[in-house]
Amino acid sequence: MKKLTLALLLLPFLGKAQSADEAMIKKISDEILRNGKAYDLLHQLTKQIGGRLAGSPQFAKAIQWGKTTMEQQGADKVWLQECMVPHWVRGGQDKAVIIEIDKNKTSHALDVLALGNSLGSGTVTAEVLAVDDFAELDRRKDEAKGKIVFYNHGFDPTNVKPFISYGQTGIYRRSGPSHAAKYGAVGVMIRSLTESAANDPHTGAMAYNDSFPKIPATAVGPRDADDVWAMSKKSTLKMSMTTNGHFLPDTIGHNVIAELTGTEFPDQYITVGGHLDSWDVNEGASDDGTGVVHTIEIMRALKAIGYKPRHTIRFVLFANEENGLRGGTKYAEEAKAKGEKHVFALESDAGGFTPRGFSLSVTKEQMAKAQSWLPLLSPYGAFEFTADGGGADVSPLNRTFGIPVGELNPDQQRYFDIHHARSDVFEYVNKRELLMGAVNMAALIYLVDKYGL
Amino acid sequence: MKKLTLALLLLPFLGKAQSADEAMIKKISDEILRNGKAYDLLHQLTKQIGGRLAGSPQFAKAIQWGKTTMEQQGADKVWLQECMVPHWVRGGQDKAVIIEIDKNKTSHALDVLALGNSLGSGTVTAEVLAVDDFAELDRRKDEAKGKIVFYNHGFDPTNVKPFISYGQTGIYRRSGPSHAAKYGAVGVMIRSLTESAANDPHTGAMAYNDSFPKIPATAVGPRDADDVWAMSKKSTLKMSMTTNGHFLPDTIGHNVIAELTGTEFPDQYITVGGHLDSWDVNEGASDDGTGVVHTIEIMRALKAIGYKPRHTIRFVLFANEENGLRGGTKYAEEAKAKGEKHVFALESDAGGFTPRGFSLSVTKEQMAKAQSWLPLLSPYGAFEFTADGGGADVSPLNRTFGIPVGELNPDQQRYFDIHHARSDVFEYVNKRELLMGAVNMAALIYLVDKYGL
Repeated sequence: MKKLTLALLLLPFLGKAQSADEAMIKKISDEILRNGKAYDLLHQLTKQIGGRLAGSPQFAKAIQWGKTTMEQQGADKVWLQECMVPHWVRGGQDKAVIIEIDKNKTSHALDVLALGNSLGSGTVTAEVLAVDDFAELDRRKDEAKGKIVFYNHGFDPTNVKPFISYGQTGIYRRSGPSHAAKYGAVGVMIRSLTESAANDPHTGAMAYNDSFPKIPATAVGPRDADDVWAMSKKSTLKMSMTTNGHFLPDTIGHNVIAELTGTEFPDQYITVGGHLDSWDVNEGASDDGTGVVHTIEIMRALKAIGYKPRHTIRFVLFANEENGLRGGTKYAEEAKAKGEKHVFALESDAGGFTPRGFSLSVTKEQMAKAQSWLPLLSPYGAFEFTADGGGADVSPLNRTFGIPVGELNPDQQRYFDIHHARSDVFEYVNKRELLMGAVNMAALIYLVDKYGL
Repeated sequence: MKKLTLALLLLPFLGKAQSADEAMIKKISDEILRNGKAYDLLHQLTKQIGGRLAGSPQFAKAIQWGKTTMEQQGADKVWLQECMVPHWVRGGQDKAVIIEIDKNKTSHALDVLALGNSLGSGTVTAEVLAVDDFAELDRRKDEAKGKIVFYNHGFDPTNVKPFISYGQTGIYRRSGPSHAAKYGAVGVMIRSLTESAANDPHTGAMAYNDSFPKIPATAVGPRDADDVWAMSKKSTLKMSMTTNGHFLPDTIGHNVIAELTGTEFPDQYITVGGHLDSWDVNEGASDDGTGVVHTIEIMRALKAIGYKPRHTIRFVLFANEENGLRGGTKYAEEAKAKGEKHVFALESDAGGFTPRGFSLSVTKEQMAKAQSWLPLLSPYGAFEFTADGGGADVSPLNRTFGIPVGELNPDQQRYFDIHHARSDVFEYVNKRELLMGAVNMAALIYLVDKYGL
């Protein structure tokens, strides 16, 4: 009887606590799905500004657009945080042409893009050494001297999560050039990091090892990669590869930071962000225009419904993720220098597809707490927290303060069709999928703001 | 001690049983993701045959294609099951033009499609009565006589699941014409059942109530719907609407049925299927080309890995779902007439997007059993079973035999962008998403075959 009474006494309270959260998340979701501006803002960013590699005029324009847009969408405060960014330029049209097959002249043009940060000063012409992976190159290192090494290492289609494949093959893009230069190669071409059936090449950042010559490096479209691989098995190929990538001096860039000021803990910060820079060859719609407009949308929606956060929530458009991580690094450095107290940071940098959950870098206890929220989140799409991460831009906060960080985990089956390729354009983004990402992120931010993590 | 011994004795068995299932599902997944033919088969079906409304020449061609393909992909047995299908034809180009605004002549063309099964014999010209819903029409029924009623009832964007919105608004397409004819209307135009930002109209089946005149009926693109709605609030509109839909006599169609013969229970049947017919205005890629090639792919993959099913598995391409459900009905009727024992049926008719789970029509006990399999399925994408259904084509089996039925539940955010619209084409389908659907369905079929449901 006593037990029953206690249960009866507790019931309304428990019921109320539960339904207050449910009601708030429903309110957030309705606001975003009914009045969301993310899709229109993405149209502005991609079509009026376009590709915006750090240091480019479009990047400068994007910073101003970000500041103005955050102000228009109701931020309590907006400012620009200066940080130096690298200024790599492509310098011309990248080309690769098979000019000889078994000493017979030919002119088989391939669709290539120079890798970001790679250096080129015109055309190199050399025989092709086609290898499947580093192990094969290591075995055949004596053949590499004076050659253009072609790494044909593709995604493993049996990985259910393409990000696993990206993790497995990314090293060929990042380190493949110096690995080949070590053996005397004069150029590198990698199979693009994608499973797409299209022939678009996919660029992305590489980094030279200063111990070896800095040889030019490109990514080739997957259909062309198949052709070159097949030809190389039967014949000796000679290729001309033209790239003109070079660095201009570092230049001034900015993180765009907006705040909704906390009512209880104004000096404790929750950060939500995406990165404003993109590659130069596309509109940077899914990488990371969607993260940018998720960030703005969450702020807009919380303001629109009159939400008063307990902590100060920072909405950050990071300056430079793609080829330097200077924006995220600067943000954490300044936070440390100012002695700021940060409690959580969440990024969107995996596209605007339907959310499936979040990846977190957290303790076991924090993971358990997050998982207790799944019944509140799953009606909106996020059904799992995985322990595999947090976005690149928020990782310096994690390293600096040891705070929990996370990243939206949208469906990833389509992401590498367009990642770093010319096809990363507005048209590939679906409005409802995009808005659902903002809904789930806003709901998680609300829960962390209310209960801590 | 005894307890411990028992646990230790059981452990290897439990471990082995678990890992045998894990290994088999991994084998299925690897086979489909590595060697899957679904995407190429979908290309054939959509590009070589195209739209294939029941009764059309393309539909006849699709039946032959289905039979040949099933044979080529390794069925133990393939046959055609005859059933009569309706033969509705559009009969010409559908048109709607606002010809007067407040008695002033104009010529504002709208993008419309006649609703499937609707009858038309040329042009009707009348004033427009624009209403939001049935309730408004009922209040204003005295205004309806001699008018073209325009239902502007759109999807509720706050529904996280667009299928909920489709459920809420579908009645305007199905019953809107007769509801208006009851009040003397001479034509009906509905807002297309979509949230798409494009202006494509979306057709789909309607049915007349024989008590009222069979007036022509169209669906209008959502942007045009917005325009007409806005104009109608300020002005009196006169519209000409031209449709020529009519029925030819019912004609012979076929369900295409393939089998992998059971080793233990050859006379007990598990059915997997999708529907072969589609609307006439598109390629029927997502509705239901993806279900057709899921079905074929599952058979191909099980055969390719040498799987010997305990039960006989039937792979069925149903003849006519869109405007009659004659295929699914015939299949269940014949099963009953022959005294066949059916144990489970699974359909794919919600697109080829990344799987999120399955909807089931099952008992509580069956649901609990299915849910115990989630740890085996969730690595491949299916993380939930919901109790809201089973596909249209397998519903007659459920009604006839009371057996459990289910339907693949892919991500649905994009489905109604293209559902029944001209934009339901091959290019909207992603290869990996499509294959993941086949993986999850095949895994569920394997589990039901092994353990029953």
